[in-house]
Amino acid sequence: MGLTGNTRILNNQLRAKVMSAEAAAELIASGSTVGMSGFTGSGYPKAVPLALAARMEAERAAGNKFRLRVWTGASTGPELDGALAKADGIEFRLPYNSDPIAREKINRGEMEYFDMHLSQVAPMAWQGFLGPLDTAIIEVTGITADGALVPSSSVGNNKTWLDRAQKVILEVNRWQNPALEGMHDIYYGTALPPHRVPIPLIRPDDRIGQTTFSCDPDKIVAIVETDGPDRNLPFAKPDDAALRIAGHLIEFFRHEVARGRLPASLLPLQSGVGNIANAVLTGLMDAPFENMTAYTEVIQDGMLDLLNTGKLRMASATSFSLSPTAAEAMNANMSQYRGNMILRPQEISNHPELIRRLGCLAMNGLIEADIYGNVNSTHVMGSRIQNGIGGSGDFARNAYVSIFMTPSTAKGGKISAIVPQVSHVDHINQDVQIIVTEQGLADLRGLSPKQRANVIIANCAHPDYRPMLLDYYARARKGSYGQQSPSLPGEALSWHQRFMETGSMRV
Amino acid sequence: MGLTGNTRILNNQLRAKVMSAEAAAELIASGSTVGMSGFTGSGYPKAVPLALAARMEAERAAGNKFRLRVWTGASTGPELDGALAKADGIEFRLPYNSDPIAREKINRGEMEYFDMHLSQVAPMAWQGFLGPLDTAIIEVTGITADGALVPSSSVGNNKTWLDRAQKVILEVNRWQNPALEGMHDIYYGTALPPHRVPIPLIRPDDRIGQTTFSCDPDKIVAIVETDGPDRNLPFAKPDDAALRIAGHLIEFFRHEVARGRLPASLLPLQSGVGNIANAVLTGLMDAPFENMTAYTEVIQDGMLDLLNTGKLRMASATSFSLSPTAAEAMNANMSQYRGNMILRPQEISNHPELIRRLGCLAMNGLIEADIYGNVNSTHVMGSRIQNGIGGSGDFARNAYVSIFMTPSTAKGGKISAIVPQVSHVDHINQDVQIIVTEQGLADLRGLSPKQRANVIIANCAHPDYRPMLLDYYARARKGSYGQQSPSLPGEALSWHQRFMETGSMRV
Repeated sequence: MGLTGNTRILNNQLRAKVMSAEAAAELIASGSTVGMSGFTGSGYPKAVPLALAARMEAERAAGNKFRLRVWTGASTGPELDGALAKADGIEFRLPYNSDPIAREKINRGEMEYFDMHLSQVAPMAWQGFLGPLDTAIIEVTGITADGALVPSSSVGNNKTWLDRAQKVILEVNRWQNPALEGMHDIYYGTALPPHRVPIPLIRPDDRIGQTTFSCDPDKIVAIVETDGPDRNLPFAKPDDAALRIAGHLIEFFRHEVARGRLPASLLPLQSGVGNIANAVLTGLMDAPFENMTAYTEVIQDGMLDLLNTGKLRMASATSFSLSPTAAEAMNANMSQYRGNMILRPQEISNHPELIRRLGCLAMNGLIEADIYGNVNSTHVMGSRIQNGIGGSGDFARNAYVSIFMTPSTAKGGKISAIVPQVSHVDHINQDVQIIVTEQGLADLRGLSPKQRANVIIANCAHPDYRPMLLDYYARARKGSYGQQSPSLPGEALSWHQRFMETGSMRV
Repeated sequence: MGLTGNTRILNNQLRAKVMSAEAAAELIASGSTVGMSGFTGSGYPKAVPLALAARMEAERAAGNKFRLRVWTGASTGPELDGALAKADGIEFRLPYNSDPIAREKINRGEMEYFDMHLSQVAPMAWQGFLGPLDTAIIEVTGITADGALVPSSSVGNNKTWLDRAQKVILEVNRWQNPALEGMHDIYYGTALPPHRVPIPLIRPDDRIGQTTFSCDPDKIVAIVETDGPDRNLPFAKPDDAALRIAGHLIEFFRHEVARGRLPASLLPLQSGVGNIANAVLTGLMDAPFENMTAYTEVIQDGMLDLLNTGKLRMASATSFSLSPTAAEAMNANMSQYRGNMILRPQEISNHPELIRRLGCLAMNGLIEADIYGNVNSTHVMGSRIQNGIGGSGDFARNAYVSIFMTPSTAKGGKISAIVPQVSHVDHINQDVQIIVTEQGLADLRGLSPKQRANVIIANCAHPDYRPMLLDYYARARKGSYGQQSPSLPGEALSWHQRFMETGSMRV
């Protein structure tokens, strides 16, 4: 087509709906539910939410409440979650958040937050289990002459929001690279049961849909033109712990290839967001695996580097999550990357059917694990939400090998990442096969709980906490009600209680 | 063919391998891993395990150890788990157990037990993650002239054990009805990644495989002829609590149909094992739903009744789990039932891909749930295993609606099924949409943790424990580290500690 021209809105009927962000924000009623685009800081609407926040502040100054129920793909940017939370304008939020202001509101009990498996958001919305969706606010790269919408730097739940919303507001963001057109694969073959059929994807690079969103033009009530960057945050340079974690994990992959339990090109990689995940990807640059693929949620810096060298043949995801430098490099060579990247709806990037079929190697972070390998990846001290479960549950349960990584301590050693019992569970021990810390790697496949405890304490716990864990475990082996997963309920969460009281888990 | 004739072994080459159970048991070495047939008391080998137990006892009397690693489909019968456990002959057991003697050994710390998602056993064994499989001991109904094996009253992991074992011992059980032939659907299209393809099942009644197992005859080292019944236990007559639970649930289904969120014939039912599940099935006899289907693990009495009346059009499972009366009735009319029942491998009956696609209504039991809807279905007081997670995780996470049911108290009111925090987690709150007790039903769809707490305490908790829960929750709303899922780690497991110390959770 030609999104490179004077306008990004090539359809005349729709071009007539262009208005200001303020005018668009006026179309949204307090108390309504809004489905926004956006996934890990990419492709979220940037102007209408700010105009909404201004309206909320004005209403508040006038003594009125103006609050919304906000659904997204995952985390967004300060212009959306930050601004709306600051204006006290979010009554209810799903399915994932990493904004610090919103997080604070949630943990003060001032915002309801429903932390969902990312694969389940679209189907549950369609099933009607989340209530009606009033308005969709979706950032796109452009609109074609026949009214199709060219997706932006994330896909997330946009297809479902466009389908289910009563009315649609589009932000057409000129900052997004027009060469994004053609990179997306929007699958329209999902259905409600009993009409569901197999999803015809058998390799990460299969294209099974169309490159644009379809949307009934009569539902589009406003179009706002913007020119603003995604929220691209720099990655920290991998520290020593991250490098050692990456080293242990790559050694494990080499071992599995040598034993014939993994192909020489591995299996499709899923990599969580964050510095440790990025360090592992960077470590793969020097590892002996060629022609790798990724079937994951986000494409981050380390993955781009792997693509550049050809070690990674292609990457499928639902969004980008790049540093400013990487975003710039990618934008400069977008037409080249279009050949080896695919962005899909998150119900497809995270679909259990596809993760199980492809046999992904799932690599995710954690807050704490217990001696039996149950993992808490969301709630600090069991009650304070950090971000959310995101897609980690979709991948961990269905992966070929489910791997969780963390430094063995946090807060300068005052918190142990290995505890007698996790204060909250996101991943049950059956879904956790490998735990890696800078201390070492615990391979838990085929082990009973007590066998797992021995390996986790010996290989993963920090030496400062190992004697405390051994002491707890030895006493649980004697005093527990049952000996399948020995525990002392009167003491199991005492490390958390001690941290809350003294600022440290140490005695 | 003709399993009704004089012999059930129509293949001459194989008939030459018939021997006594004692002789077959001699072929198994101490320390080896044995994959047995058997699922919820159906289709397990009945003679060789008893001979093995006798050998173990004799070795023990002579001062020697004789122990095995035992893999099965799920629970078996007293002649297998009971006898081997009594002889102290099981070193390691997976993936599910309900035998009281084995349970006691496990909870005394004398037997290692790895409690797995039932859908994952076959693929993980194939992937090599569980170690090598030395011998398969499989009960079959008969052997055809061309050497194919006619499955018995359960399928379980038999296909995988036959494929993966170094050597195979068959028990041909004359007690099993020859008319079982043709009821099974054994899918041979699974593979290791990257060679997996979509499983071509789109309705519960689709047949996608063959009716028999294939097995390399050279691997078959022994065949033992038996004539013994499955372990068929009577169901308790539904008590008042079970009837009320069933009533609440059926009312919920009616409501969902009226709202257009469920078809009038519902969606494929999955029903856990046990008296409450059976009461729900019985309740469906008088409910207004017609042409129902089941896609589940076991076919139990209530399902047979529904099939008899035509309310249930067909049932797909991996095993029977019938009372003696129902087993007799079914055996008398087997050729009729063969048209509306299908038994499949448990990797197919429990496959996430298929559960998600079909949109099953998952109904499972629990030991305890907490105020946020996290569910413990395995560990009493957090450490003592009851049975195992079985297939509940496969179904709960992938269901259209995931339902958990329990009476609100146990042990004559001394245990509350609703607690401040579960002592062990099998199902995270994201996988629990409906909780039902005799007190009422909590619909948790689309609710944040704090919203869930209000509904669960109000609708599901027993009135005797409701004030204690409200008191804990009110204090957690003030004193918690964070307010996403308010908790007091110093007190969260105190109800369990109190029960262990005083015999009651009451203050």
